[in-house]
Amino acid sequence: MEREAALKLVKEQLTDHRYQHTLGVMETAISLAKQYGGDVHKAELAAIFHDYAKFRPKEEMSEIISNQGFPKDLLHFNSELWHAPAGMYLVEKEAGIRDPEVLDAIRYHTSGRPAMTLMEKIIYLADYIEPGRHFPGVDEVRAVAKESLDQALIMAIKNTIIFLMKKNQTVYPDTFYTYNDLIKKLED
Amino acid sequence: MEREAALKLVKEQLTDHRYQHTLGVMETAISLAKQYGGDVHKAELAAIFHDYAKFRPKEEMSEIISNQGFPKDLLHFNSELWHAPAGMYLVEKEAGIRDPEVLDAIRYHTSGRPAMTLMEKIIYLADYIEPGRHFPGVDEVRAVAKESLDQALIMAIKNTIIFLMKKNQTVYPDTFYTYNDLIKKLED
Repeated sequence: MEREAALKLVKEQLTDHRYQHTLGVMETAISLAKQYGGDVHKAELAAIFHDYAKFRPKEEMSEIISNQGFPKDLLHFNSELWHAPAGMYLVEKEAGIRDPEVLDAIRYHTSGRPAMTLMEKIIYLADYIEPGRHFPGVDEVRAVAKESLDQALIMAIKNTIIFLMKKNQTVYPDTFYTYNDLIKKLED
Repeated sequence: MEREAALKLVKEQLTDHRYQHTLGVMETAISLAKQYGGDVHKAELAAIFHDYAKFRPKEEMSEIISNQGFPKDLLHFNSELWHAPAGMYLVEKEAGIRDPEVLDAIRYHTSGRPAMTLMEKIIYLADYIEPGRHFPGVDEVRAVAKESLDQALIMAIKNTIIFLMKKNQTVYPDTFYTYNDLIKKLED
């Protein structure tokens, strides 16, 4: 699917604010893909669609998670996580995206997972550092992202875990596993 | 076993510094047990023996973990964790302690685990806040421990996770599960 067609589909699903965020993720993902040898067109597509399900009703998302083979424990964690797997499902069903590399990058863009693919790392990080993001520590991650995708990803995941813990929120186990997995690879 | 006999056994196993720490954990555990309705004598005994295996050779500890039914994934995480399960095994074998409440408090005093017992919480926290501990944040946890065992435990576990992440060290999954478990119980 070409950029304009994809953007048109996504614009209908999002608020203006979230659409602007999506454009930022798109530009950042393209730039990271060029830098780290990822498929630029796939990165563009995954970025455009990453938040496709963001504004779907919670009931619809939880039904998709329950009935379409996703891990049901997601339903016991923060509902902010749900739009990622639900988005993967809906992007395939409604937009006809079939590429597993693109679909998995959408699916894991909020939780991460151990042994993330290059494309998953690109979308996770692009979502975190796109130019519209403003929070303490983001500039540091942006700087590190110019040098090392994995180091920047580790910083983003640590910040996310600390952010959630400061709010006394649970952390989805895949996020912890992602952290441990990346650290173990540093040690090897 | 009475205090003096237990202390004599443990003193032989520890450095002076670690023995002083043990005495601090003992006093703190007794005080927490009185405050939160735990068995004072069991708390005393678990505290005295909690670091029993601290200075055993790594090879001995890893052999115990491998061969005595402990989760083998421990061997892929920081060896600082090993003295807790190895200690549980050795305290039973060499000191003849049989009480499962005491043994489990020793076993889980570094990692925690979901659904910790009162005794496990007392020993974990006493180890963290005994008077000989000096690090940023410990006074805050001491203050909260006067009001709520669980809130203090959450703070201690959060601090531990952040401490490990700042050093780019892996975090044993049980520690994350303990955090999530305590947070979920707050939410209920």
